[in-house]
Amino acid sequence: MRRFSLNQWTTKRWTVAEAVDGCVRHGVEAIGLWRQDVAAQGLDETVKLVRAAGLRVSSLCRGGFLTGPDPLANNRKAIDEAAALGASCLVMVVGGLPGVVPGEPLGAFSRDLAGARARVAEGLEALAPYAAERGVRLALEPLHPMYCADRAVLSTLGQAIDFAEPYPPEVVGVVVDSFHLWWDPDVLPQIARAGSRIASYQVCDFLVPLPADVLLGRGMMGDGVIDFAPLTRAVAEAGYDGDVEVEIFNADLWAADPETVLTTARHRYAQLIAPDLQEV
Amino acid sequence: MRRFSLNQWTTKRWTVAEAVDGCVRHGVEAIGLWRQDVAAQGLDETVKLVRAAGLRVSSLCRGGFLTGPDPLANNRKAIDEAAALGASCLVMVVGGLPGVVPGEPLGAFSRDLAGARARVAEGLEALAPYAAERGVRLALEPLHPMYCADRAVLSTLGQAIDFAEPYPPEVVGVVVDSFHLWWDPDVLPQIARAGSRIASYQVCDFLVPLPADVLLGRGMMGDGVIDFAPLTRAVAEAGYDGDVEVEIFNADLWAADPETVLTTARHRYAQLIAPDLQEV
Repeated sequence: MRRFSLNQWTTKRWTVAEAVDGCVRHGVEAIGLWRQDVAAQGLDETVKLVRAAGLRVSSLCRGGFLTGPDPLANNRKAIDEAAALGASCLVMVVGGLPGVVPGEPLGAFSRDLAGARARVAEGLEALAPYAAERGVRLALEPLHPMYCADRAVLSTLGQAIDFAEPYPPEVVGVVVDSFHLWWDPDVLPQIARAGSRIASYQVCDFLVPLPADVLLGRGMMGDGVIDFAPLTRAVAEAGYDGDVEVEIFNADLWAADPETVLTTARHRYAQLIAPDLQEV
Repeated sequence: MRRFSLNQWTTKRWTVAEAVDGCVRHGVEAIGLWRQDVAAQGLDETVKLVRAAGLRVSSLCRGGFLTGPDPLANNRKAIDEAAALGASCLVMVVGGLPGVVPGEPLGAFSRDLAGARARVAEGLEALAPYAAERGVRLALEPLHPMYCADRAVLSTLGQAIDFAEPYPPEVVGVVVDSFHLWWDPDVLPQIARAGSRIASYQVCDFLVPLPADVLLGRGMMGDGVIDFAPLTRAVAEAGYDGDVEVEIFNADLWAADPETVLTTARHRYAQLIAPDLQEV
């Protein structure tokens, strides 16, 4: 269980301080943090808390939205925060079509998908040197194609690797998230191709039927349709030896006692993920 | 406008007879039919109606669900119906994970995605000769990845072509549906690759945000996020010269007067689709 990491939004009601405390009490060694929660706790205070607890910060979520107006300043700030926290990577959700706002009705926006992708490449080119200088690894996260318009115009792992390839693997990596990628007929060879670019492996299940808000279609491992074994084995065989984040956005879990959620997550992880990590 | 085809479920309240009548009154030359509506009208009666109206049957929807129990008898029946109707193709929605029922909570099912795909290949092998003998073209439809578990384990055009390639293009083709494929970074080269295998081009928009029932996330062209021009041009350049079906599942449109819906569909098609078909 040493590679189990709690992504903070799995226990969304917990503040950073509460989540850090929960990790310590449950023997969790790593945590994935969210910028808005870090800001609420205070960056310096968060750094102190995770250091005192001896936690690894497996990721900071999230930078990106490179297709929106003037994205560089905010991303540089995110990179600075990731550096201060010693996070293994800064997760980059690259953004959707310019002008499309997640969860809101369509207003003025652009349908130029190729143009949006070009803006992602440009943003990355501007940010990669800044990240490299600070020792921060950007982690491009391909999102499920149902989020292409409003959250990420990177939809497959192969495409994310294409965008990362101009840069050294330690500067721009990719995220393998089971929820987003399980359906892809090409995912296993692409995980092998990703190799040392894998910056994060995030696990949660894909619920069927999807709930009304598809953003919350993520479920506890075992509650949905994903066969985790082939994905986990492929990630291990590709050489990834970092932390494995359980990251679940789910209205029922968010309403439940975070204590119980963490206990269940560790139990399911032990059953469905850990056996295939091929640890020696 | 001569290639405009009304997929019957765009005007779902219309019976086959009403839809045929609507096509005639609006100058529509082609119709896409659904098996359950054909059965309600009667197959022989439907054949008479479409012949008397001089309509082309651009598709029969749908065969498939090859991952379920004992799928062959029902698909042979669908092939017979397509032959009787002289349909340009029988659309095949290949089915999801065995045991997952669309719209229902998960019961007993299999997570074996690779196994499900193998069953699709086996079913196709059993059905292709039967279809070929009757002059019916099977059209594999890759569905949006959000339907992978419950409706189709074929999620990309490239994957659908891979499954079709063992067979002659006139026996097993593929469907290009804008809603399902617009997000795919590889879609334009795959449309070119599909070439003479394109058996149907279906258009409708992708709504953002998605409605609570994601099956009804299809919208009138222009109401969603899709840039149709690159897709339509690629389909035309690939050599497809068949009918173009407007197929929209949408609660608001189903509640509206079908007369108005058809008028709007023809108007939007004239604006957003026809100019890129490069007709000579």
